Amino acid sequence: MRRLPARGAHDRVTVHAILDAGFVCHVGFVADGQPYVIPTGYARADDTLYLHGSTASRLVRTLAAGIDVCVTVTLIDGFVLARSAFHHSLNYRSVVVLGHARLVSGAEEKMEALRRFTNHIASGRFEEARAPNEQELKGTAVLALDLEEASAKIRSGPPLDDAEDLAVKIWAGVVPLRQTVGEPQPDQHNTVDGEFDTSRLVVMRR
Amino acid sequence: MRRLPARGAHDRVTVHAILDAGFVCHVGFVADGQPYVIPTGYARADDTLYLHGSTASRLVRTLAAGIDVCVTVTLIDGFVLARSAFHHSLNYRSVVVLGHARLVSGAEEKMEALRRFTNHIASGRFEEARAPNEQELKGTAVLALDLEEASAKIRSGPPLDDAEDLAVKIWAGVVPLRQTVGEPQPDQHNTVDGEFDTSRLVVMRR
Repeated sequence: MRRLPARGAHDRVTVHAILDAGFVCHVGFVADGQPYVIPTGYARADDTLYLHGSTASRLVRTLAAGIDVCVTVTLIDGFVLARSAFHHSLNYRSVVVLGHARLVSGAEEKMEALRRFTNHIASGRFEEARAPNEQELKGTAVLALDLEEASAKIRSGPPLDDAEDLAVKIWAGVVPLRQTVGEPQPDQHNTVDGEFDTSRLVVMRR
Repeated sequence: MRRLPARGAHDRVTVHAILDAGFVCHVGFVADGQPYVIPTGYARADDTLYLHGSTASRLVRTLAAGIDVCVTVTLIDGFVLARSAFHHSLNYRSVVVLGHARLVSGAEEKMEALRRFTNHIASGRFEEARAPNEQELKGTAVLALDLEEASAKIRSGPPLDDAEDLAVKIWAGVVPLRQTVGEPQPDQHNTVDGEFDTSRLVVMRR
């Protein structure tokens, strides 16, 4: 993204809104001197961001040690087509969270985080689905990250062409971009009549 | 993403196809001991991934020193709704590239990379737009990253429910997810008749 002024925002409302509209984050951490960026799901509760993974995964094993971590969530809202190649851009909203993850050990907080992971994707789904059993809980680690050091960055609106380029005779403006769902595909074991109500999905609640 | 077997792929064709279908990557690097994950555009030429940014940006200044970097591209293809909370998942395709960035100094390679950035978003756009001038070229740095150490990870298909959960009476399957474009919005200075042909955009070429 180009470095232009006035794209930063740090207020909680903005940060929360972007996190609630997204559902995949990119987690950055260092293991054996090598930086890694791993995509994963997340959920938010107040000023806490939750991540989860297999207790055997490198992500979980590394983060649980309390090392520095960066979690970034990016939503792409549109293609910005300018008259100059230079001013082409993307409209986007992003949040960058810096901090240290904490391994959630309390059974109640852990179950509540798992509930939020599922219900963030599809509202009410956790209550319908078969609940996590002891073995699954044992194999799943939940990590919590404070949103204290979180900042948002937003680009919106039309291209910012140089005045002398306005005479260039090409179409210029914004092509909006959104995530949309296709027709739900029941699996081969499905015995339930009717379609899944896609209005429950995170991308339809935006 | 859950850790289940047989999701890895390392062949060039798969890696290239995922990189060519996406257009935003998340770049992970360490500055002053803190890992950062920054979203940015990219382009590919053969086995080279190009990034760019303002010469003043932290991303460029840090990466140009040749430090370890991780670049991740993630495409989300669908929500996987299982009968158990545990087996909920996402269908996705991702590429993780590890390596060291090289600052592109040759004028020809740099201009070719800039051409690819623009044309990756909208085919033929670089040739229509006003070309980069000397000042813009000076203010923009292009970084090149070898795709030698790149790996792909893919999850596709229906939920993998436990056999004993197949009796759970909730809808289960996949809801496909895709990026679609809205109506192009010409800016206030637009004097060109007709709409922008959105079939030229990267998300429509998938």
